[in-house]
Amino acid sequence: MKTLSENRCFEGKQGVYSHASEVCGCDMTFGLFLPEEARDGPVPVLWYLSGLTCTHENAMTKAGAQAWAAEAGIALVFPDTSPRGDDIADDEAYDLGQGAGFYVNATSSPWAPHFSMWDYVASELPALLFQEFPLDPDAQGITGHSMGGHGALTLAMAHPDRYRAVSAFAPIANPTQSDWGRKQLSAYLGDADWSTHDATLQMQAVGFDGPVLIDQGADDQFLDLLKPEALAQAMAARRQDGIFRMQKGYDHSYFFVSTFMEDHVAFHADAFFS
Amino acid sequence: MKTLSENRCFEGKQGVYSHASEVCGCDMTFGLFLPEEARDGPVPVLWYLSGLTCTHENAMTKAGAQAWAAEAGIALVFPDTSPRGDDIADDEAYDLGQGAGFYVNATSSPWAPHFSMWDYVASELPALLFQEFPLDPDAQGITGHSMGGHGALTLAMAHPDRYRAVSAFAPIANPTQSDWGRKQLSAYLGDADWSTHDATLQMQAVGFDGPVLIDQGADDQFLDLLKPEALAQAMAARRQDGIFRMQKGYDHSYFFVSTFMEDHVAFHADAFFS
Repeated sequence: MKTLSENRCFEGKQGVYSHASEVCGCDMTFGLFLPEEARDGPVPVLWYLSGLTCTHENAMTKAGAQAWAAEAGIALVFPDTSPRGDDIADDEAYDLGQGAGFYVNATSSPWAPHFSMWDYVASELPALLFQEFPLDPDAQGITGHSMGGHGALTLAMAHPDRYRAVSAFAPIANPTQSDWGRKQLSAYLGDADWSTHDATLQMQAVGFDGPVLIDQGADDQFLDLLKPEALAQAMAARRQDGIFRMQKGYDHSYFFVSTFMEDHVAFHADAFFS
Repeated sequence: MKTLSENRCFEGKQGVYSHASEVCGCDMTFGLFLPEEARDGPVPVLWYLSGLTCTHENAMTKAGAQAWAAEAGIALVFPDTSPRGDDIADDEAYDLGQGAGFYVNATSSPWAPHFSMWDYVASELPALLFQEFPLDPDAQGITGHSMGGHGALTLAMAHPDRYRAVSAFAPIANPTQSDWGRKQLSAYLGDADWSTHDATLQMQAVGFDGPVLIDQGADDQFLDLLKPEALAQAMAARRQDGIFRMQKGYDHSYFFVSTFMEDHVAFHADAFFS
């Protein structure tokens, strides 16, 4: 593991690190915020998965999350959204290939050799983090924005007892019924069963074994692609412990994410500490 | 004036606007955050001046300032740092020309026709803002980072009774004695008197008619260029109403700025509302 940068931030430390990823077959970069409390021992950790076109950096610099994580004494992990490199498959479209890993393990050509973001976020990166940093594996939460909200919800429901809570900002909620989903799942998975990678279908099938918080902007320019109504319906039908909030006037930007970040960090902190 | 974007943010609105600037002889872009309270009438306004290489956008997306401004009910203005355009003089160096206006009115060639950031921030942009938006001209404060801290301090001391308070993050504090200063003041002003554009010299000569707050990271990679010790000495010697804080472990980045933004917004709010 290589340290790319470390900056003091809210009495803790915002680091950026790279490492050779076996499952992605390339070097991967991630951000990690450690609160001051990490000097004295392991702290809870909140995973933040980013959206289409993002890297590890977007939320780390634009979401204002460190202020609240420092207040709560929890760490934040910001993984990248795909493998990257000149010798790695890509597509001209912003929503396929590099920057658009969709948190699945690709099985189709040309994506299969590198695009294993599901295993990367669920297995390889956690193993590295819990070995290298003072983080408590028994106190994990997960959140994300857009494609990252999709990743957070599907990973959480597929790993019962792993995450204490899950939340999402404007998640791609029903990708098997959306152009943000069918295109990518077709490319990465071919005609395999996609249901593991659809938060609405997973909510219908299994739900989540803890509290769920969803925020969605009512003026989001991508509402037709996100399909929040499908997830809201599925949460209510399952009697899922959770909150779905439609936020009047907000769009899909980080101005929306940063506005409600305090609530999400507090929501996860509550699951860690209560 | 043209609206480039408006995003709902912390119950208020983050806008980006452009307008034809007479003093800069080009279109200029600025960001403006209006809190919810602006719907009911004029609100106080805090000016944020950015540093070298920055545009109107950096602090607007990376400083986390809107959270605290919304809480306090004050507006934030984010001007650009220079005139911009293909037909406007520039330099290959990052610290001269476009992105490096240094908050002066250039009198030397080739800069004089467009580089009038002093008049832009002190006169032209305020006139536009107070005409177009619900902002209270009698409740203004000013802050900034690095070159923007230099601008905030020098503008504040040159305009008594204009700003209720002034603060700065790692300001270029003594530019007439630094390579961040002598180079730019030589280029823009030639051998004219530079003292108006040196915060330490102005602190020695006149001081500020209100409270001053300075934050400086002790591990700032640019300490030799910033020369905080000169300003600290001058503040103390003048018995200036103010606080100078050396922050252990912090560097020059926005991770430093965002860490102390809450304190700066609260400091200005205190000057507005008490």
